[in-house]
Amino acid sequence: MENGPATSTIHTMADVWDAYREDLEGVEDQVRKNLDSDVALVNTVAAHILSSGGKRIRPLLLLLCARACGYSAKEHLVLGSLVEYIHTATLLHDDVVDDADLRRGRPTARKLWGNQISILVGDYLYSKAICQIVRFRNQSINEALSEACRKMAEGEVLQLYYNGNPLITEGEYLRIVEHKTAGLIAAACRIGGIIGGAPVDKQAALFRFGQHLGIAFQVADDTLDYAANGDRLGKSLGQDLRQGKATLPLLHLLQHCPGQDMQMIKDRMETRTLTEADLLRIISLMQEYGSIAYAMERAHTFVAAANRDLDLFEDSLPKRALSVVADYMVTRDR
Amino acid sequence: MENGPATSTIHTMADVWDAYREDLEGVEDQVRKNLDSDVALVNTVAAHILSSGGKRIRPLLLLLCARACGYSAKEHLVLGSLVEYIHTATLLHDDVVDDADLRRGRPTARKLWGNQISILVGDYLYSKAICQIVRFRNQSINEALSEACRKMAEGEVLQLYYNGNPLITEGEYLRIVEHKTAGLIAAACRIGGIIGGAPVDKQAALFRFGQHLGIAFQVADDTLDYAANGDRLGKSLGQDLRQGKATLPLLHLLQHCPGQDMQMIKDRMETRTLTEADLLRIISLMQEYGSIAYAMERAHTFVAAANRDLDLFEDSLPKRALSVVADYMVTRDR
Repeated sequence: MENGPATSTIHTMADVWDAYREDLEGVEDQVRKNLDSDVALVNTVAAHILSSGGKRIRPLLLLLCARACGYSAKEHLVLGSLVEYIHTATLLHDDVVDDADLRRGRPTARKLWGNQISILVGDYLYSKAICQIVRFRNQSINEALSEACRKMAEGEVLQLYYNGNPLITEGEYLRIVEHKTAGLIAAACRIGGIIGGAPVDKQAALFRFGQHLGIAFQVADDTLDYAANGDRLGKSLGQDLRQGKATLPLLHLLQHCPGQDMQMIKDRMETRTLTEADLLRIISLMQEYGSIAYAMERAHTFVAAANRDLDLFEDSLPKRALSVVADYMVTRDR
Repeated sequence: MENGPATSTIHTMADVWDAYREDLEGVEDQVRKNLDSDVALVNTVAAHILSSGGKRIRPLLLLLCARACGYSAKEHLVLGSLVEYIHTATLLHDDVVDDADLRRGRPTARKLWGNQISILVGDYLYSKAICQIVRFRNQSINEALSEACRKMAEGEVLQLYYNGNPLITEGEYLRIVEHKTAGLIAAACRIGGIIGGAPVDKQAALFRFGQHLGIAFQVADDTLDYAANGDRLGKSLGQDLRQGKATLPLLHLLQHCPGQDMQMIKDRMETRTLTEADLLRIISLMQEYGSIAYAMERAHTFVAAANRDLDLFEDSLPKRALSVVADYMVTRDR
């Protein structure tokens, strides 16, 4: 097996990073190489966010899916970097939409260069990625990525539409998550299958794997917003609630807590006023009513579904790595 | 000749609209038909801006270029509508970047639904267009459009970079214009040639035609910002200067007016403070030093270049219509 240790040694994310270091360095090279706009400011802003410590999960999944299909050439490096460009474009726009000042503990592009630049460099990264993608002349890849982008934009609008609304159902919440987060991850996995020459059923399985994984990731991320150790994150707790976003643990709590607490939460969502005391009260209620545990269990259910999607594939180093990544998506330090 | 009167009767834009009414109605049908997001708010916002009285110049150019190459099928209708989607996506983002409250005399999407929705529906329209475009499985079209989008984003960043800077050269100004405006118009013209089955040299000629036309259009538009009759526009004069944008008539004036006026203009640009008296003074200086006339003459020079790009094509109804559109681009009421 090329590029890594024997199958039996892949147990943790450290093993995965180690086994696929060369591939991931190749992705980094491509990320840098394609920042070749003749407008210098575009490169500066894009480099700022692209070098801010992202884990390159989407390129990693793309390459592992390709490897799991026996792929041994090099196209996954560029394709992975282009998926990362698209992801980065959405982050630039998200930070404007969310008025975010920090991302991964560093000032956001909008904080440093303003909203206008952040919007336009996002547009640039997205269109640059599409330019490069179409050069591959692969219809399946074109369709997988453009569909993912359309779904992401729909998911973001949907999220904004429900913003400040505490009456959203779990189904509506999951629909947002599936659109805004899972779509691109699923597309990355499918593209791995496409370049790996997988038959249609395996491509579809990889797509579902990515979709389940993406949902698991977002549900866990939303839950950690009420549960993680704030010191280690570079961002504080309760951000979603401050922005009026009702996520799974909160939806669970709203269905189970006493009426006066429910009223307090609805009020804080609608007025976007949340004191530290409110937040501590809400987190304590979530622990009391098992909302954190419920949401994390839902995340783990999606991980289990993702792992079942891999049943079609024979045991291999990259398949084991995919399982490790799947677990990591819901347990990682943020 | 289908779809219209004899060649000799095409003299004005009214003749063009009349001769190609059926085609343009087909474009409108496609514009409506593709607004099929299952997120209702996306369709509402997109319909608002798409039905706000745009002239559909890009779809018109696409169809005329296709007809000039002898095209007689129907793909130009969808393709025209998708180019219009991309154009509309840029308008949604431009209005956020420019803090614009009005467009064509109506409230902008950002004014009605907020910046966030405007950014995200722009992302949706762009990605929706790419989804539909790739379905045509035409590599030349994929490349022409994605390149145009990349150039537009670069042009917008470049414009922002030079914002508030009165020392920009005419060459830098034209580079911005060529990127942000001419790129998509040139791509629309080339796509007409592509579906019309034109040989490579004619495709390139149509691309150059669109590029010259796009530059002419933007230069004229920038000039009318100091010269048009404010009552008829739905927007007031001097907007570019208020936003810190140095355009061709202003650059000409800065090179020719006395030092104290130059200082006043630079100061207003840098501080973004422009009174009505300042504006009247600047417009009067522009008339005195021939800045309006200079810029309009430059616009007409680009129209002449555009018309020469059509030399490769035999005389025909659509070729005449292209020339009429070219003139209209610099003389129209806005």
